[in-house]
Amino acid sequence: MSESGIQTEAELVVGIDAGGTRIRARLAVASTGETLGEGTGGPGNALSVPRDGLVRNLAAALTGAVRDGRGGAVRAVVAGFAGGGPGGGHENARTALAGALAAVGAAPARVEVCGDVDVAFASAPGTPADGLVLIAGTGAVAARVERRRAARAVDGDGWLLGDAGSGFWLGREALRAVLRSLDGRGPATVLAGPVGERCGGLRREDIVRYAYAGHPVRLAALSPLVVDAERAGDAVARRLLDRAADELAATVRALAPRPGEPLVTTGALIGPAGPLLPRLTARVAPLGLAPSPTPDGLTGAVALARLPR
Amino acid sequence: MSESGIQTEAELVVGIDAGGTRIRARLAVASTGETLGEGTGGPGNALSVPRDGLVRNLAAALTGAVRDGRGGAVRAVVAGFAGGGPGGGHENARTALAGALAAVGAAPARVEVCGDVDVAFASAPGTPADGLVLIAGTGAVAARVERRRAARAVDGDGWLLGDAGSGFWLGREALRAVLRSLDGRGPATVLAGPVGERCGGLRREDIVRYAYAGHPVRLAALSPLVVDAERAGDAVARRLLDRAADELAATVRALAPRPGEPLVTTGALIGPAGPLLPRLTARVAPLGLAPSPTPDGLTGAVALARLPR
Repeated sequence: MSESGIQTEAELVVGIDAGGTRIRARLAVASTGETLGEGTGGPGNALSVPRDGLVRNLAAALTGAVRDGRGGAVRAVVAGFAGGGPGGGHENARTALAGALAAVGAAPARVEVCGDVDVAFASAPGTPADGLVLIAGTGAVAARVERRRAARAVDGDGWLLGDAGSGFWLGREALRAVLRSLDGRGPATVLAGPVGERCGGLRREDIVRYAYAGHPVRLAALSPLVVDAERAGDAVARRLLDRAADELAATVRALAPRPGEPLVTTGALIGPAGPLLPRLTARVAPLGLAPSPTPDGLTGAVALARLPR
Repeated sequence: MSESGIQTEAELVVGIDAGGTRIRARLAVASTGETLGEGTGGPGNALSVPRDGLVRNLAAALTGAVRDGRGGAVRAVVAGFAGGGPGGGHENARTALAGALAAVGAAPARVEVCGDVDVAFASAPGTPADGLVLIAGTGAVAARVERRRAARAVDGDGWLLGDAGSGFWLGREALRAVLRSLDGRGPATVLAGPVGERCGGLRREDIVRYAYAGHPVRLAALSPLVVDAERAGDAVARRLLDRAADELAATVRALAPRPGEPLVTTGALIGPAGPLLPRLTARVAPLGLAPSPTPDGLTGAVALARLPR
């Protein structure tokens, strides 16, 4: 297919980070790690996105990353899925990935499906093999990684049962705080202003209608309002951010951390410059931990794909 | 239609109590209150049940209650809907009720749609006009009633945002408590046994799969497990029931109760012999309130329909 024999004969790898909000894929040269292409697709949670949608979203990300007929040169693919650990949506992810790889003409010798925590942890400098990882984006989950795979996870139980301290959690609590201020169960909060704008009104009915009008996880988009409200000096918002950080620290603590071991953090709330990173740092310091924030798991997925089997 | 002229010429009324789990309808003689028939239908929450389903569920309840061609003798209908207050699902309820009444050949001169709190409050002996009402069944809501209509409501914000201390709330917290005991964030609990049975296993994946496999409010069916676990001496279950009662008491307190005013309580948790009734009684006593538990709002709906306009 290609006019440049040398380029297509280089062994290539693909790393995929499939999160609750979007899927990212990256094509790289196996020997050097040089990035050759990237693509994105829709939500990739292997527990909550049905097979067909997952194939479509993976194919969109892969089509962006793997161009110019390079699919045939892909030797290894590592994909980390939110909800994709053992049990969970592992089989859903594996089957969907096989379908999407076929769509871009790739038939790699090695295809590995793992959890989002595995690729996030591997994103840290030096691709560490053992330590702790905490993700707080749309959802929240922590894991102890042993020999590059999550040996134990805490939380990651989703919007209905857990994800304590996540973006969804903060967005939902913002709405609850405003409802409580309206009905007299809680103090006034400047969150009422921006929440009223989002909901098209500040009556209880407006907020309730907004909240139930779509998938609950979209409430994660409200979490920046809490950060802004705290900057404006709002005590309710400050308390919500404190509680979120308390929950995330409790999630880490449940992994029985050993002082000095790596703690990789990622996701919008605790990645580089994440709004909860300073609070989390203060809370895990007494455990002898210092967060290593990383932007996402894509780097780790590529790093794992480049490792010799 | 009827062979008994006298019976069909008696003026009849219909009371409807449309709750989150089912709709109940009762046909009664306007002058005496004598019950002539009852029927039940599926869920009746005016916010969450779409129009078509609501018509179908109302028609099922009405068809059971209004038999023998008595529809034409119905003069007044009062229907209290969960989520059916002003704003909320009022219009949905009104339109659906009109459709369902037509289906049973009723064209009453007076049709009133109100909230579940209104009919619950009116169920108290003597059909009081002013006071407080607290419902804790699948959901949880309280209201101050003035001249037979809710003047102010607290909570009732649904499973995603509120219903604090409700059956759904207890059921969800039961699952969360078990998940936390499994991943090390919380203490062990005997709830693990019955929850594992319901979920088909006691791995985190089993519980998560069970919880997300259907509509969240069905988790209310787990609330009796918490009551049983407390009876077996479980501290985690006791704490959950305490917290539920705390939440319900806070909901009442937000209505700024006046010592000695009526507090009508209903719903599976705080109706007659409800498992949270003793705890609630203890918590509202310092406010000068004593709960009057009533089985449901059906009696009140009929009482309101029998009142002169």
